[in-house]
Amino acid sequence: MAQQLPSTPFLAIDLPVLEANIERVAAWADERGLALRPHVKTHKSPEIAHRQVDAGAQGLTVATLGEAEVFAQSGFDDLLIAYPLWLDDARRERLRRLAVEADVRVGFDSVEAAARLVGLGVTGMLEVDSGHHRSGVAPERAGEVVAAAVAAGLDVVGVFTFPGHSYAPDGREAAAADEARALRTAADALTAAGVAPRVISGGSTPSLAATGEGLNESRPGVYVFNDAQQWELGACTPEQIALTCHATVVSHAGGRLVLDAGSKVLGADRAPWASGFGRLLDHPDARLVILSEHHAVADLGGADLPPLGSIVRVVPNHACNAVNLVDEYAVFDDGALVGTWGVAARGMNA
Amino acid sequence: MAQQLPSTPFLAIDLPVLEANIERVAAWADERGLALRPHVKTHKSPEIAHRQVDAGAQGLTVATLGEAEVFAQSGFDDLLIAYPLWLDDARRERLRRLAVEADVRVGFDSVEAAARLVGLGVTGMLEVDSGHHRSGVAPERAGEVVAAAVAAGLDVVGVFTFPGHSYAPDGREAAAADEARALRTAADALTAAGVAPRVISGGSTPSLAATGEGLNESRPGVYVFNDAQQWELGACTPEQIALTCHATVVSHAGGRLVLDAGSKVLGADRAPWASGFGRLLDHPDARLVILSEHHAVADLGGADLPPLGSIVRVVPNHACNAVNLVDEYAVFDDGALVGTWGVAARGMNA
Repeated sequence: MAQQLPSTPFLAIDLPVLEANIERVAAWADERGLALRPHVKTHKSPEIAHRQVDAGAQGLTVATLGEAEVFAQSGFDDLLIAYPLWLDDARRERLRRLAVEADVRVGFDSVEAAARLVGLGVTGMLEVDSGHHRSGVAPERAGEVVAAAVAAGLDVVGVFTFPGHSYAPDGREAAAADEARALRTAADALTAAGVAPRVISGGSTPSLAATGEGLNESRPGVYVFNDAQQWELGACTPEQIALTCHATVVSHAGGRLVLDAGSKVLGADRAPWASGFGRLLDHPDARLVILSEHHAVADLGGADLPPLGSIVRVVPNHACNAVNLVDEYAVFDDGALVGTWGVAARGMNA
Repeated sequence: MAQQLPSTPFLAIDLPVLEANIERVAAWADERGLALRPHVKTHKSPEIAHRQVDAGAQGLTVATLGEAEVFAQSGFDDLLIAYPLWLDDARRERLRRLAVEADVRVGFDSVEAAARLVGLGVTGMLEVDSGHHRSGVAPERAGEVVAAAVAAGLDVVGVFTFPGHSYAPDGREAAAADEARALRTAADALTAAGVAPRVISGGSTPSLAATGEGLNESRPGVYVFNDAQQWELGACTPEQIALTCHATVVSHAGGRLVLDAGSKVLGADRAPWASGFGRLLDHPDARLVILSEHHAVADLGGADLPPLGSIVRVVPNHACNAVNLVDEYAVFDDGALVGTWGVAARGMNA
């Protein structure tokens, strides 16, 4: 029986596309002999994580302690917090409790942060900077920092990086090469310091296809949904986009399409190279040229406007931030609403 | 007794600054003889709305039907939905129920949308475009559209505009002048069409100080908190910023400050003229130069870095979008946590 559609704007998952994305990347990792540890900050949903694990993912990657707690409560027992956590007393207690329920690896990029991870039942993963220049130590310093962390008592199991500079036009191959080089340098430095680099972990959705040699783990996130950024970077086709925001045409002001989906459901992300604030899945030439909190204005370049009251599918620029704005997904199969899934880890920033 | 601080990142209200902002703008409206109808999409909090009404606000402005329902449930009975709602069957029923509890004015910018508002117990407000070019009819067309709406059976009580082009460097005075001109043109057109323009409503926080003649209602929102955009536009001083995100220094990678507040708590807003992704309240020369979902990288321009584990106060670029990312505020008075307030209308996009 068809369910009642929610009022717009709402986020919709195209289930067959989602499942195909999960299968495709799982097969790729299997072929490459890589452990797949998808980043679940993209979807924040145990329903989707279960599908990823069923397809072969070895464990999950999360960004925060709060996300780790949500997924541990849902039964996932192999978690990497790919973030340089700084533990105050409250977080130290939470992490200690979490480590009872799950095998937990935690990122660090300083000796001070590493020392605070000791004695909690978790292992450490050194973050290295492969060119994104956000967090992480320079690969050449990996040996020195890991040796000090080990001396402080931390069990260090490997190194990881996020090649975030893959989010640039024509940046995907170069970022993947940087990633492989940084991880090899860091892994060699660990070996030289007497610490076996058991896990060598990279991955971002745009750089995935160009992943180089030397990694044994990959942590893509966005690939489950894809979004307008991936579309514009050439990292997916429009047919591989599984997440859209259904929005109502509320006005034709100025001869353009005014939609009831704004930055409070799409997110305000707009990279300098993005062609707009989002795209329309069924109108590939359209661009969102204005985005307010509850309005998106789409320029259709002279094409006929869908009528007032009709519903269009908006592709957010950045799926991860859109997801974090809603409490649930509407799940569609072959155009019919078949259920809703909660965004269980929405807002779990701490 | 001092309460336990939440884990970072969290949004904090400086209560005395909030109250001073509310009082200052209420006094300004009173002096100008303007009805104040603050836009509560900024804070989504009945606690703050009560303070605004206690200070003299005549009613509230909301952006969505869902926000209207939340505030009506909290006892506010004079609401403007300043948005060109398109009513489907579900929304029509919700609006009908809402109108039993509260006096509800609803925006429209087409005859088709106006016709759908008839018979629900609400009144209509025509939206005109004063230069933001988002939604609203051209002021010159106001008479024609309103006459048709009235002929369809709608009780039209006035006109409104949002001079959103005030969000530009040196754009505040010009936008205020455009606003006044558009509203006068529209009001005259209503009069000529035989419809008394009882409410003539404008207002945006940047343009407030330059508000022109002819309005009788103002609807600013952001002034309660202010944010980095208002700071950079010169619409507030740093001492008038009441909302910050408390964030922990998790890394000194690259000689910069890496904070645990990213776009999932600050929002990803960055206007073309903004100097960064946000500011630090206590380091006015610092800029957030990188923003990811859970990292903000602050360049302090060579100043000494606050130590790892210390907490800094980040000023989001756009308060309204930051607020929509959290479930509650931590309320501080004189540096001490004195309570928490819920963001009751978080996520109420529909």
